[in-house]
Amino acid sequence: MSERLVIIGGVAAGTKAAATARRRNAGASIVLLQDEADVSYSACGLPYHLADLDRIPRSKLIARTPEAFRADGIDMRTRHRVEDIDLDGGTLKVCDLQAGRVYTEPFDRLLLATGARPNRLNVPVSPNAPPIAYLRSIVDADRIVDRLPDIRRVVILGGGYIGLETAEAFSRLGREVAIVEMMPRLIPAFAPPLGQAVEDRVRENGVELFMGSGVSGLDLKSVVLDNGERLPADLVLVATGVSPSTDLATAAGITLGHTGAIAVNSRMQTNRSHVYAAGDCAESYHRVANRAVWLPLGDVANRHGKVAGTNMAGGRAVFPGVLGTAIFKVFGLAVARTGLGEAEALAAGYRPTSQVVEVPSRARYMEGSRKLLIHLTADRATGKVLGCQVTGDDAADKIIDTVAAALWGNLTVDDLADLDLAYAPPYSPVLAPVQVAGEVLKKTCGR
Amino acid sequence: MSERLVIIGGVAAGTKAAATARRRNAGASIVLLQDEADVSYSACGLPYHLADLDRIPRSKLIARTPEAFRADGIDMRTRHRVEDIDLDGGTLKVCDLQAGRVYTEPFDRLLLATGARPNRLNVPVSPNAPPIAYLRSIVDADRIVDRLPDIRRVVILGGGYIGLETAEAFSRLGREVAIVEMMPRLIPAFAPPLGQAVEDRVRENGVELFMGSGVSGLDLKSVVLDNGERLPADLVLVATGVSPSTDLATAAGITLGHTGAIAVNSRMQTNRSHVYAAGDCAESYHRVANRAVWLPLGDVANRHGKVAGTNMAGGRAVFPGVLGTAIFKVFGLAVARTGLGEAEALAAGYRPTSQVVEVPSRARYMEGSRKLLIHLTADRATGKVLGCQVTGDDAADKIIDTVAAALWGNLTVDDLADLDLAYAPPYSPVLAPVQVAGEVLKKTCGR
Repeated sequence: MSERLVIIGGVAAGTKAAATARRRNAGASIVLLQDEADVSYSACGLPYHLADLDRIPRSKLIARTPEAFRADGIDMRTRHRVEDIDLDGGTLKVCDLQAGRVYTEPFDRLLLATGARPNRLNVPVSPNAPPIAYLRSIVDADRIVDRLPDIRRVVILGGGYIGLETAEAFSRLGREVAIVEMMPRLIPAFAPPLGQAVEDRVRENGVELFMGSGVSGLDLKSVVLDNGERLPADLVLVATGVSPSTDLATAAGITLGHTGAIAVNSRMQTNRSHVYAAGDCAESYHRVANRAVWLPLGDVANRHGKVAGTNMAGGRAVFPGVLGTAIFKVFGLAVARTGLGEAEALAAGYRPTSQVVEVPSRARYMEGSRKLLIHLTADRATGKVLGCQVTGDDAADKIIDTVAAALWGNLTVDDLADLDLAYAPPYSPVLAPVQVAGEVLKKTCGR
Repeated sequence: MSERLVIIGGVAAGTKAAATARRRNAGASIVLLQDEADVSYSACGLPYHLADLDRIPRSKLIARTPEAFRADGIDMRTRHRVEDIDLDGGTLKVCDLQAGRVYTEPFDRLLLATGARPNRLNVPVSPNAPPIAYLRSIVDADRIVDRLPDIRRVVILGGGYIGLETAEAFSRLGREVAIVEMMPRLIPAFAPPLGQAVEDRVRENGVELFMGSGVSGLDLKSVVLDNGERLPADLVLVATGVSPSTDLATAAGITLGHTGAIAVNSRMQTNRSHVYAAGDCAESYHRVANRAVWLPLGDVANRHGKVAGTNMAGGRAVFPGVLGTAIFKVFGLAVARTGLGEAEALAAGYRPTSQVVEVPSRARYMEGSRKLLIHLTADRATGKVLGCQVTGDDAADKIIDTVAAALWGNLTVDDLADLDLAYAPPYSPVLAPVQVAGEVLKKTCGR
């Protein structure tokens, strides 16, 4: 009898695993259980969908329909929620949400791709408070779209990347937007000058910022801050981070790691070797920090899913780890990072030193040249590059990808200063931004 | 007495060396001899200057004036041409072009930064032929600018990057443009599909192409092709490559390398240890080919100059080599490369294999996503990445810089496929173009 591979979760990691397993093992029985009606959609695209429903309709976010998976011989069951896992028995208790029926599903190998869920608001909410929304799933977006006609003013709780992307989306829709952030500054994981650049950009675009402010409750059509200030709102968007969805896993005896997400080895196996985990519910090995981290990001989920799918289907793929590379855009400004910041580097046992440089993105006389802020961190003793953060309207993604490749190869600041990068006036100054940052940090390292 | 450092040539390498030597050694006497009136200008910016004199006037191309160098204590002598080098005597014969006076200049250490000169047209030119122009120096540009009112139609000889950039410049100025190229296709060092993309782009923009055509002569207001066809022209721009300017060096007994440019060691010293060479007249060590190459490029010249300047002033800098990274833009299309093409890789003793992939530059649903053609080459036996070529309207420079960093770190195709790059819909598809190319080539390598 063919092996039964069952996958719980059908957004990024789950669908990638299913498709990969299918290609590798034509004979396996592959079942995917997804509680939503949609599968395989770009959650990262939701703010762009919201900002421009005409140009990016819902359908464009969906990479592959359930029917397309079924045509590939994947038993794709949408609106099926897994309620319990019996690891020793090798079965799942599944609720068919459409039919309202609970049944038992056997498996030989199981993939947990249960994702992450938004942290809920934990303050008193009065009955006449504005409605609360999240922007995590495509259904969350549907709900916001339905309410749009009634929304004139939005208060966003949380100044992380989802909060900022969504602030821009509402702003482009002509809504008044305020962001409430508990920390005294935006993107606190970034160096202060970069955080300031983001703050300036957000304010310049008319978004009100309330920094260092907690929320004490939601009241009559408004958000009430700790200091008693009331911010009127037709909608409260909660974007205060996400947590790994691990309830099913922990109930079944699957071990979590120090981050609270599911611990996996390099083959994406949990403590039970026939159970895999991938995507936003699972940890990743960080190649620079040399420890497990939790990075709920779409591209990481995709790569997790590929490795898990290969191995479930009998292959021998290894997940080589992450660098913590991430990017987002807010009002034209790219905010990007890879590797470790200074505090993270200290925690990982390095002796970090950092420098911020301000450089143009192209030859100064070329149209399109923009200011870049680059914060580069290296180990003082060895010169090894540890991480980079960038903000800029142009070429920030290029700089981060270049440094990411450098981190992968364990390059030093000397290497960065020496790199042979692509120069022509429309693309770079003659001394590339990465080289300038490397050169400056080289001196700091006393090299 | 302080050491006398003398530099011949004042565009990229020479001025960089002078400035670097000045910073490192406050006591040295530094003389720079430049035959042109201008120094320290962006030769790479000349086509952009020509295309838009208002936005990029001549003055913007000049990074630093002779006066600024003099204020730094550099004895900057413009319009001084070196006529002879006496290495054993440690003197130069210099002609002051302004004063029409020849004098002797002593040196302790000498830098040859004599650059490269355009290959001249070697066909019969009748007296009533259209004027011939080059676009190598800022004076060449001045001459073209002076003639612009009389030019309605330009024939460009040579379909390399200077020819193509200049074709675009004239086209933007509303002139009719034709390019004559001896080879049967444009950018022959690139893989055919990429060459085709460039050819299509150039034709779409109204530039006439005459491929596989030699020129038999210039005649009454026209260029005469080998097949007898006459192309009317008000100006003939010759862009058939450049050659290293080595006359002074060879006359003085300085050794040239197999490329015909001046051979240097990693400290940029020639066969005479007190004589350095840098920039377009000198060779570079290629880190992937493991041999000397000649790459007359502005950014390489700058890095050469820095190393030479440091060492002339008593430092111990090492030039770590190049990867052959280069980029240019033609009618919006970026054309870029790093490392070795397949033929070059074969010649360097590798067992290369290549693949071309066509991928979008960003999430497909995002505005600004454009088609990229990526040609990736790796060694079949080891999987080591050897080179990459890209054409595209978006992100081609990012891909090349990422692969350049990967080449610097000796990464394999497996590494490329696994890299943790910056993903967000406005910047990349969830599976980055570099990863897709790595993945495809991994299979070809049987990994």
